[in-house]
Amino acid sequence: MAGEIEARLAQLGITLPQAAAPAANYVPTVIAGGMLYISGQLPMQDGKVAQTGHLGGGVSIEQGQAAARLCAINILAQAKAALGDLDRIERCVRLGAFVSSTPDFTDHPKVANGASDLMVEVLGDKGRHARAAVGAPSLPLGVSVEVDAVFAIR
Amino acid sequence: MAGEIEARLAQLGITLPQAAAPAANYVPTVIAGGMLYISGQLPMQDGKVAQTGHLGGGVSIEQGQAAARLCAINILAQAKAALGDLDRIERCVRLGAFVSSTPDFTDHPKVANGASDLMVEVLGDKGRHARAAVGAPSLPLGVSVEVDAVFAIR
Amino acid sequence: MAGEIEARLAQLGITLPQAAAPAANYVPTVIAGGMLYISGQLPMQDGKVAQTGHLGGGVSIEQGQAAARLCAINILAQAKAALGDLDRIERCVRLGAFVSSTPDFTDHPKVANGASDLMVEVLGDKGRHARAAVGAPSLPLGVSVEVDAVFAIR
Repeated sequence: MAGEIEARLAQLGITLPQAAAPAANYVPTVIAGGMLYISGQLPMQDGKVAQTGHLGGGVSIEQGQAAARLCAINILAQAKAALGDLDRIERCVRLGAFVSSTPDFTDHPKVANGASDLMVEVLGDKGRHARAAVGAPSLPLGVSVEVDAVFAIR
Repeated sequence: MAGEIEARLAQLGITLPQAAAPAANYVPTVIAGGMLYISGQLPMQDGKVAQTGHLGGGVSIEQGQAAARLCAINILAQAKAALGDLDRIERCVRLGAFVSSTPDFTDHPKVANGASDLMVEVLGDKGRHARAAVGAPSLPLGVSVEVDAVFAIR
Repeated sequence: MAGEIEARLAQLGITLPQAAAPAANYVPTVIAGGMLYISGQLPMQDGKVAQTGHLGGGVSIEQGQAAARLCAINILAQAKAALGDLDRIERCVRLGAFVSSTPDFTDHPKVANGASDLMVEVLGDKGRHARAAVGAPSLPLGVSVEVDAVFAIR
């Protein structure tokens, strides 16, 4: 019996991927003090990196937004793996969006909106979060965007 | 009837600006688990970007400090909009300071002190916070500094 | 009477340094809401910077890992100064690892593992944490790695 959030995912045509397994001595998720902390997620699709390169250096804003959206989908996949039921989410509290950028790039917020919009599409008002969107000279595996998250849960 | 913190702001001659409205599906502030999370704030003054450019590349440390101070003032403006009364702040728990920097810049802490000092000027000992100060190749709108914050509240 | 964690530190031959004193209006640690927030720690050893330079630009992955490990040791030194007894740690909740990187560097996770591995060596399963590992064009004092942390405590 799927919950309300999973029904919305189905309506949106979004299939959550299998949550990536822990790669090292860090783990994808930690629950503490009523909060779910999710490790920085990359724009992986079907187990492969979907978008590499720098914003301002060959990657378009639309490509960056699609990458940020993938990060957000992978965040929800990790949340489901940790919680069992996404309806346990009370609020998406914070997203941290790191955008691989050249020194003259200025549209980090537009790129990060790819993640923010997905969160609200899926979670509704519970998806509205605080956010920091900043540049990085490079990110793991050469990806264009990395996003981490904190959720309040019950 | 202004509270204690607002009286100190007045003594310091600091007028909090109108808190910037949400620009997208992210919001300026979220309250969860007794904490107030504030989105990354930029050095905006009178609705305009007050400082752009890179530390180590034409922006002086003094200009960077002034930008960081503006970010901190905008953080307090968001806190007031969220809380109504700044006296509900029990502690500034953490600031994250992102400094737009060239690869050879090394004085990120001096720049971030512009925000840290403002927080203690206004909040006293409640303003003493944990902090990470790091470089970024570029930030939204080309600004020189972005600061986000977590407060413990009652 | 040393606690369990300090006994493990001794077994591992790790001597925690004197925790660095607060340098400004920010402080090394804040306790709030059952969590211990630790400011970004640098790869200091015997009071001196042990590793500067960029990954991808002359600093090897092994040197980066050693720097990240030093950051993690300094995080534990700050935790001990704040808590008195490291056995009060219930969980390392999150590490934020900033790696000073060139635009073409891609191995940030390998570098950050220097901190993640130390945390699990010392704390065991309590040391398994959520993590974000990202690049920075430059960091305070020119260091190669900076790591901040959040712990759940009792």
